[in-house]
Amino acid sequence: MNTNTTTNVKAYGTVAADVPLKQMDIQRRNITAKDIEIEILYCGVCHSDLHTARNDWGFTTYPAVPGHEIVGKVTQVGSDVTKLKVGDFAAVGCLVDSCHTCDNCKKDLEQYCTTGWIGTYGSPDKHLGGMTLGGYSEKIVVDEHFVLKVPANLDLAATAPLLCAGITTWSPLRHWKVGKGSKVAVVGLGGLGHMAIKLAKGLGAEVTLFSRSIDKEKDALELGADAVIISTDETQMSAVNGKFDLIIDTVPYVHDVNPYVGTLNTNGTLVLVGYLGGLEPILNTVPMILGRKSVAGSLIGGIAETQEMLDFCGEHNIVSEIEIIKMQDINEAYERMLKSDVRYRFVIDMASLKS
Amino acid sequence: MNTNTTTNVKAYGTVAADVPLKQMDIQRRNITAKDIEIEILYCGVCHSDLHTARNDWGFTTYPAVPGHEIVGKVTQVGSDVTKLKVGDFAAVGCLVDSCHTCDNCKKDLEQYCTTGWIGTYGSPDKHLGGMTLGGYSEKIVVDEHFVLKVPANLDLAATAPLLCAGITTWSPLRHWKVGKGSKVAVVGLGGLGHMAIKLAKGLGAEVTLFSRSIDKEKDALELGADAVIISTDETQMSAVNGKFDLIIDTVPYVHDVNPYVGTLNTNGTLVLVGYLGGLEPILNTVPMILGRKSVAGSLIGGIAETQEMLDFCGEHNIVSEIEIIKMQDINEAYERMLKSDVRYRFVIDMASLKS
Repeated sequence: MNTNTTTNVKAYGTVAADVPLKQMDIQRRNITAKDIEIEILYCGVCHSDLHTARNDWGFTTYPAVPGHEIVGKVTQVGSDVTKLKVGDFAAVGCLVDSCHTCDNCKKDLEQYCTTGWIGTYGSPDKHLGGMTLGGYSEKIVVDEHFVLKVPANLDLAATAPLLCAGITTWSPLRHWKVGKGSKVAVVGLGGLGHMAIKLAKGLGAEVTLFSRSIDKEKDALELGADAVIISTDETQMSAVNGKFDLIIDTVPYVHDVNPYVGTLNTNGTLVLVGYLGGLEPILNTVPMILGRKSVAGSLIGGIAETQEMLDFCGEHNIVSEIEIIKMQDINEAYERMLKSDVRYRFVIDMASLKS
Repeated sequence: MNTNTTTNVKAYGTVAADVPLKQMDIQRRNITAKDIEIEILYCGVCHSDLHTARNDWGFTTYPAVPGHEIVGKVTQVGSDVTKLKVGDFAAVGCLVDSCHTCDNCKKDLEQYCTTGWIGTYGSPDKHLGGMTLGGYSEKIVVDEHFVLKVPANLDLAATAPLLCAGITTWSPLRHWKVGKGSKVAVVGLGGLGHMAIKLAKGLGAEVTLFSRSIDKEKDALELGADAVIISTDETQMSAVNGKFDLIIDTVPYVHDVNPYVGTLNTNGTLVLVGYLGGLEPILNTVPMILGRKSVAGSLIGGIAETQEMLDFCGEHNIVSEIEIIKMQDINEAYERMLKSDVRYRFVIDMASLKS
């Protein structure tokens, strides 16, 4: 590595699946003509961070520095940068590069880049070699195309989770054309689920939360849900049979989607955004055929769509519900996330990394 | 039953699951103000006919008279009928009634009537009691709303299968907006599959047949397919990875849809029209999420859409490939259908019932 072209920054990461995250030094490239350097002020904590740190998916390369819900301040811009200037607030989500030339990139669907998008962490870094390193760090350098503008009225820390939890639920709401009068249900009330409620409500939908526990009811209603259905209660489930135009299923582990399919209206879609794996128990096609219902998947969102979501949140004053932690508390935070003990997203105050 | 209000007609049906179909007398209601009486000239033979006759789905009521691909000539019309007149050619498909008042009926989606549509056979008959009796008969009496007009240029016998096999594949092609330049694949080359190829091609799509057997290639190309992919050949399957906007899966038995999902483009949909049951092997959500792909179902089509399909077939001179049989040969035809020994639809010449 040519240190003339890189800058040393403090970060928090891990060198193996079975050890805690700790402070380390990493290199950021010096800016090129199209790059923006951002001093990271806040970074949200996504379940993917934990899965990557612990190699739960089996493809982590170490050292790994997680973090893809990044909000900060622009500290340098390249000579060709037009989107932002030094001193502006800026955000970076899950993507820092893509091919720019495939059919999907040309349609602002960088998240479905057919040659493979470059994640904010854990993807091949074409500038420095090795793998990209994420937002648990002092600074990051990103091509301006993948940098977002932050509406001035939003709380910065609570904006960070919009960059993953927000856009992951926004994209299907928009793709399946949710608007005033739409009937939307959300499965699961976590980081993604609570944003799905807020965003669907912001779009004018009637929003129902499916939950296995009555404990979530008060929170869901406060977040804007119109109703909560206990998914284990057959009477309650029958009452919403055939009701929903769109169901955003945020549950990240294997679960039975068949009862939810039954609550879709004709032409309705259940879209999975959290669970990567096989559908067990097996999916029954009978209600799908008898009601022209769909089961689909959706992945984060494109850059233009992310900016659209941030602007919408600015107009509607929507941010995430967060608990601010210090960088040094990340290992404890992961343990709490595993117990769903967070309402609803941890956000790291990156000032703590300087101390 | 008040015989003053009914007419005795010859039919072919069965009184139990384990006995052959044979000739029997059934009653048709005398026409009401909105009814059309049709002398049946041809009736297509659908797999559902066989399943119903043999009680494969467990809900057959006997006596059962199958047949829902009906083409004939109008012999009487009620005083309020405006759609057709005596002597016109007419067709009846899978539906003879619905509630007319639910949201779906109001949107011309009678096939998704939320109070339950009335099938041409095997549904409760609100006029005569008992169950509706289908097209293996001399005459049928149907509310004009459910009677279709037959384009004058089409071969009558070869038009009959359009009423089920045709509309079942037409409806998803239209719902998922197939047109010029669309890339469509069809799984399975039987009664439905061969119509899917013809109709998709008629709409301007590039059409590929997935088949397990190279034997189908010549036929598929003659029917209009641009290509045939042998689904068991990994090299051929890899070559169409991410290619298709819509896949019409006509296979009527349990089969692995995962390899086909891989051949969908971003935003693509695999729509099941033939298989009612659980998806085994289990459906993998990974490619669905990574490419915003959907798996859906679709059921026949509404009445307006069926007329649209018939008119389209008239304009494009599209009919089914058929083998004409006598009514008396139906039991042998069922045995041949079970061996897929039909290219591609049996149609009964109902004149044989008079002899």
